[in-house]
Order: sequence, then structure tokens, then C-alpha cells
Amino acid sequence: MADRLAQWSEMQGGLTCTYFSNAHQAVAQDLRTWMRSAGLRAEIDAVGNVVGRYESTAPGARTLIVGSHYDTVANAGRYDGRLGILTALVVAEELVRAQQQLPFHLEVIGFAEEEGVRFSAPYIGSSVVAGRFDAALLQRSDSKGVSLGTVLHEHSVDLTTIERLARRPQSLRGYLEIHIEQGPQLLERDLPLGIVTSIAGAVRCRIAIEGVAGHAGTVPMALRHDAAAAAAEIVLAVEQRCAAVPGLVGTVGQIEVPHGLINVIPGRCEFSLDVRATDDTTRDAAIADIRAAIEEITKRRGVTAVITEIARHSAVPCAPAMQQAFAQAVARAGIAPFHLASGAGHDAEQFAGVTDIGMLFVRCGNGGISHNPLETITADDADIAARVLLDVITNLH
Amino acid sequence: MADRLAQWSEMQGGLTCTYFSNAHQAVAQDLRTWMRSAGLRAEIDAVGNVVGRYESTAPGARTLIVGSHYDTVANAGRYDGRLGILTALVVAEELVRAQQQLPFHLEVIGFAEEEGVRFSAPYIGSSVVAGRFDAALLQRSDSKGVSLGTVLHEHSVDLTTIERLARRPQSLRGYLEIHIEQGPQLLERDLPLGIVTSIAGAVRCRIAIEGVAGHAGTVPMALRHDAAAAAAEIVLAVEQRCAAVPGLVGTVGQIEVPHGLINVIPGRCEFSLDVRATDDTTRDAAIADIRAAIEEITKRRGVTAVITEIARHSAVPCAPAMQQAFAQAVARAGIAPFHLASGAGHDAEQFAGVTDIGMLFVRCGNGGISHNPLETITADDADIAARVLLDVITNLH
Repeated sequence: MADRLAQWSEMQGGLTCTYFSNAHQAVAQDLRTWMRSAGLRAEIDAVGNVVGRYESTAPGARTLIVGSHYDTVANAGRYDGRLGILTALVVAEELVRAQQQLPFHLEVIGFAEEEGVRFSAPYIGSSVVAGRFDAALLQRSDSKGVSLGTVLHEHSVDLTTIERLARRPQSLRGYLEIHIEQGPQLLERDLPLGIVTSIAGAVRCRIAIEGVAGHAGTVPMALRHDAAAAAAEIVLAVEQRCAAVPGLVGTVGQIEVPHGLINVIPGRCEFSLDVRATDDTTRDAAIADIRAAIEEITKRRGVTAVITEIARHSAVPCAPAMQQAFAQAVARAGIAPFHLASGAGHDAEQFAGVTDIGMLFVRCGNGGISHNPLETITADDADIAARVLLDVITNLH
Repeated sequence: MADRLAQWSEMQGGLTCTYFSNAHQAVAQDLRTWMRSAGLRAEIDAVGNVVGRYESTAPGARTLIVGSHYDTVANAGRYDGRLGILTALVVAEELVRAQQQLPFHLEVIGFAEEEGVRFSAPYIGSSVVAGRFDAALLQRSDSKGVSLGTVLHEHSVDLTTIERLARRPQSLRGYLEIHIEQGPQLLERDLPLGIVTSIAGAVRCRIAIEGVAGHAGTVPMALRHDAAAAAAEIVLAVEQRCAAVPGLVGTVGQIEVPHGLINVIPGRCEFSLDVRATDDTTRDAAIADIRAAIEEITKRRGVTAVITEIARHSAVPCAPAMQQAFAQAVARAGIAPFHLASGAGHDAEQFAGVTDIGMLFVRCGNGGISHNPLETITADDADIAARVLLDVITNLH
């Protein structure tokens, strides 16, 4: 099914599926069709979420949401997000087929937007359902200058209805999400599944080093104030500091000498910084040390640094009860329960504080690679994830 | 006069004057007018060089060329190149005024192209006069896809005449060039002038590091193969190796993670390398050590490097006789003769091996900055350079 969905793409020879593209709408249609075939009451809501519902007859029943996202990054893998929807779908189909009565309504949701590619704003789908949608995003434009508000208007969305899609916290029993790990930890431990303890908090910065440009042939090394050399030293300081603590990661994903020339000493160098940890204290200590290192390096080299923090998210813990429910089901499946933190963000984050959240990771093949066509899982692992999810749902009260 | 020439520019609020732009042609007109006012026979040749001639009556007289270039880099300083033409011009004017008889013809040449901006090919003007023009360059296109051949054709140049502009080596007495230092050495030593010993040889490479892209949140530091971190380590290795030897410089002027994202571990990082030294042995030893460092760093980090050498120029010595002539004139001006190598390339290079070359550097203000609007010299230094040049020409046989 993930292969069928992957045929809908904005690119040739690879998978790209961003918010409200033609490919994206084709995927939504497929998901709704499959949900209906599985016996769910299914609709595509105003912002593109595909919602399939299996109603409980219990009086005063709340709703358990099991979801993930169906949009992708550019040149993506086939399982990121979609595995969680498809797993929930087969589990729901099995419950319907068995006419299993549940003490809560079950909703399978394919969220329309999580990756933040088109509008540089992630979690558009899940934030709406969790009641956390930021209306200011309606003004945010994509790379062609089309705003989110315009896109929704073109799809006949009455913007006032968005607010009504938000669930009341007291109406929810919980939120569960199956997701590929997007890392190598389960693969390294030879485990198909892992129970997520928390979703790491991140701090993101843009850093600009200002040095002195000069002729590459005429300025002796000792008299240089090379912005790129200073940046290089900072890149290594980030790497060294973050390698010192398990669960802490730091990445310089972008680096550039603007208008750099092969024969000019860099007068400016700009780079990004992304630091994450499973708890905010660890992360903030690393940020403080990195700032001190930048201070020392720039002072010694006679250059200056401007550090602009552009994002800060706290770590989000998964509910202990949900972790326990997953751990027990994993153990019943004959697998040693292994707990790990998620370095990546997920839709589940949006529901933290709204209802109890739980996440289960599925082993990634190919060294744990993700956001890449090489992303892969085994059919066996997907099957066992579905069985564990079915077990958890069946045993949840 | 440099200020008047600087008003002809392709940009607002700064100086850019590239080959055969309108600004470039206006500068050529001014130079020809001034040369004629100074009493020289002056013409603009087929490739745009402005050539002013002061004829000798001596039988069998050869020609002494004193020149530099009038094109500029983007957002340039006012003295790079032009100072050498204007100094030669005032010296020629003085010789004409004094009706000084010389044992050689004197030619003041403003070369049309040295910086290589428009066609990524430097020395177009001087290589033609030195008989070293590479006809393959006629096919080379600028950023708008217009070839050099087309540009010359549009200016009614009969391409077969280019070859005839080349001087016969036996017709030349020598080549002299005054140029701003474009570095801080004279400024640091409180000296207005310096005698150039050689023009440094350069090796230029493009280096691409191939690592493994990954999610910035999910791949532990110990399991990464980060291409940018490897590049950063190489940048520092270049800096350290080149700082160890006087007269050796190494520069990474460009660095980039292609399509880098803030939340993706760099799978690829590309950067440039420019290594220069006053002698080729020193330079090649540095290149060998840098290659060994790259080998060690990439192996240890589990990444690969592709090193593409894109240019290699040997160091060019100035003629000992011309160095001596400059040194004696500098001493007669009451200045301690100081010899230094040129880290930058100059038109003089093209005449090495064709005739004796000599170069005199003039102190750069503002810390030695060049290729920058902040490039500056003092009027006193320009005046003393002209006096020294006049002395050298008057005493040359």
C-alpha cells in the first residue's frame, strides 16, 4: 500500500508529496477509499486530514486517535508517516471485521501536513485537530508566493471551520502513533520495535561570522581574519561537545560563504545549528557551552559572530501509562521491550498536554536512513507493529 | 585621475568595470585622451588595450613597456591596476615635457583585461601583447552565454589581427609594472614601496566530500559520516599547514553544503582550495601534506573526497637586473629597499620569458585591503612611486 501511495509524486523517479499538491490530493483519495473499504466512516476534512472513524456503542465513550502524516519531504522515503496510517488502518479493519467492541471510538487519521516543506510550517494537520493551529500561518506563503490562506480558499475551505475541527481534550482517550525510527538504534540492537520515552526538544540557530575579506595570495596567514576558518572551528566544537553526551545531537546542516570566490579570503560565513536532546537541561547546557566556544573562537580570531535563535521546542514526554501499555504488548509479542527517545519531531507532539500520547518505533533498514529513497522496513516488522498496536488497543480501557 | 576613472562603473555606488562593458570602453577613451594630452602617440588596439608610445630616435631602439590593467573585479577598489597605468602616464608626460631622449621606445599600456571576471579567463590584454594569447578562449562564454569571439566581432575586430599584436621578444627592452601591494606587508613595515622578487605560483583545487546524509535528530553523533564536519577539519588542516611556513598561503574561499537543510546531516560538502608560495617546491610540499591530511581525515570519518586540480601556475621570478634597478632607485629616494614576493598574479607574468620583467609595489592603506571599495593609497606614496619609476627609466640602458 505504501508502494501504491508512492506512485503519487510531484517528481519523476522519486517521491515528493507536499501539502495540497495534486499528488497529495490523490493520496488523500486513496486513503479515504481504503478506510471506507475497511468499514470506517471516512472523510477528508477542511485542511486535508483523512479521518476514518470506528464508532463505539459504549455510553459516554471518548475517542482514541491513531495517526500519522501522509505528506513527505522532497525525494522522500515511502514509510515516513505513511507506515503509521497504514498500520492503524489494517488494525481498524481487523477490529471491524471481528466486530470487536471498544470502550472508546477509534479514529484513524492521516494528517495532511507534518514535514513543513511547502509553508516552512510543520504540523499543519495535527495542530488543527489538537486545537493548536496558529491562525497567523494563514498569511505564510510558499516559494511561489501563494499563502496558506489562499490555498485553503482555492479548495473551498471556509476558514472559520478550521477552529471547529479541534477536539476537546475531555473528548479524547489518547493519541497513539506508529512511526519508523528514522535512525539506527533498533537496527543496531537487532530489535523490530522500540517504545518511545519522549520526543527530543530542539534549539535552532542561524550563525553569521563576520571576518575580513582579503586577497588569497597577499595576506599572510598570521594576519587573516578568515570567517570560514572560524566557522570550521565552531563546527568541530559543536561536534565534539554533542558527542560527549548520549542522547544529545548537534548538527550544522547548512554552511556557506556568501558570494565566496576561490581567490578571496572569506569575509563572511553563515551556517545553521540544530541541537537536540531528550531533556531540555542537557540541551541547554550544550547550547551554553557552544555559545562559550563561539565566544572564545571568535575573540581569538578577531572575528565576530551573530547568533540568532530561530526555534526552541521543549522535549515532550510520552505518557507513562501509554509507554507501559506498549511495553506489555511488545513483551507479549515475545520481544524485549526497549525504550528510546525520538530525536525527530512527530504529530504526537501536538497532542501532548491535550491527551495521553504514546509512540512505537519500527526498525529502519539501510543503516537507519530516512528522508531518502533508501528508507526501508521489512514486511515482518510492519506486521509485528500492527499486531502490537492491535493488542494495545484491544487491552486499553 | 583614479577617481575620474572610477566614475565609469557597471554598478551604482561602487566600481565594477569588466571587459568591453560600457564603463570599460569609457575608461579606455579617457586613457587614450590623457595619453595624447601627455604627448604620446596613443591608440586603442583590437582587444581594447590602450597603447601610448614615446618614440626614441636611437638607431635599432627596442621597446620598454610599462603597463598594468584597467579592468576591475566586482565592487573593486580604485587603484588595483589603474595606479600602474596612471603612474606610467605621468612619468611619460614628464619625459616628453623634458624632451628626455631615451635609448629605447617607451610604451605605456593600459591592458584591457587582467582580472578574468567576464570570461573566467585572466590576462586577455597582456597575453595578446606578450604573444601568449590562447585562441581557444574565443569560444569561452560569459555568464550571458556570449562568447569572447562574438564580443570582439561586435566591436569590429578582425580576429586574424590579434596575432599581429604580439611583440617579438627581440624587439623588447623589458617590462615594468607598478602595482598596489594588495596586502599588509609594506604597511606593517612602514615602507611606501617594495621591490617584487617573484610572483607566487598557485595550485587551485575543487574538493568534494561525500558522506552520508541523515536526520539531524535521530542519528547519534558516533554513527555519523558528516561531510561538512570532515570539510571543517580539512579547512583547519589547510590553515595550520600553511601558517607554518613564511611566504606560503592557503585559502578555502568557497564552501557549501549543496541543498543543505537545517535538520539534515550533510551528505555532501564542496569547497575550494587555493595554495600559493613564492617557490613551487614549498607550494608542492604543502599540497602533498594537505592531500595526506585529507586522506587521513576522510578515512577516519568514513567519508570520501574527490580532489580536482583546476589550475597550476609556476612561480615567476622578476629579472635580477630589474630588481636591482628598482632597488637602486628606491635607495636614491631615501627609502630602505625592501624585497617581497607577490602573492597575487599580475600582467608582468605574461612577459616573463619574453623579456626582463620588474615590479614595484606601492603600500596599501586600510590594513592592506584590496578587491574592495576600502582599497586605498596615499598621494605621497603614489608620488614617490612615480619618482622611482622615472629614475629607473632614465637610468636604464
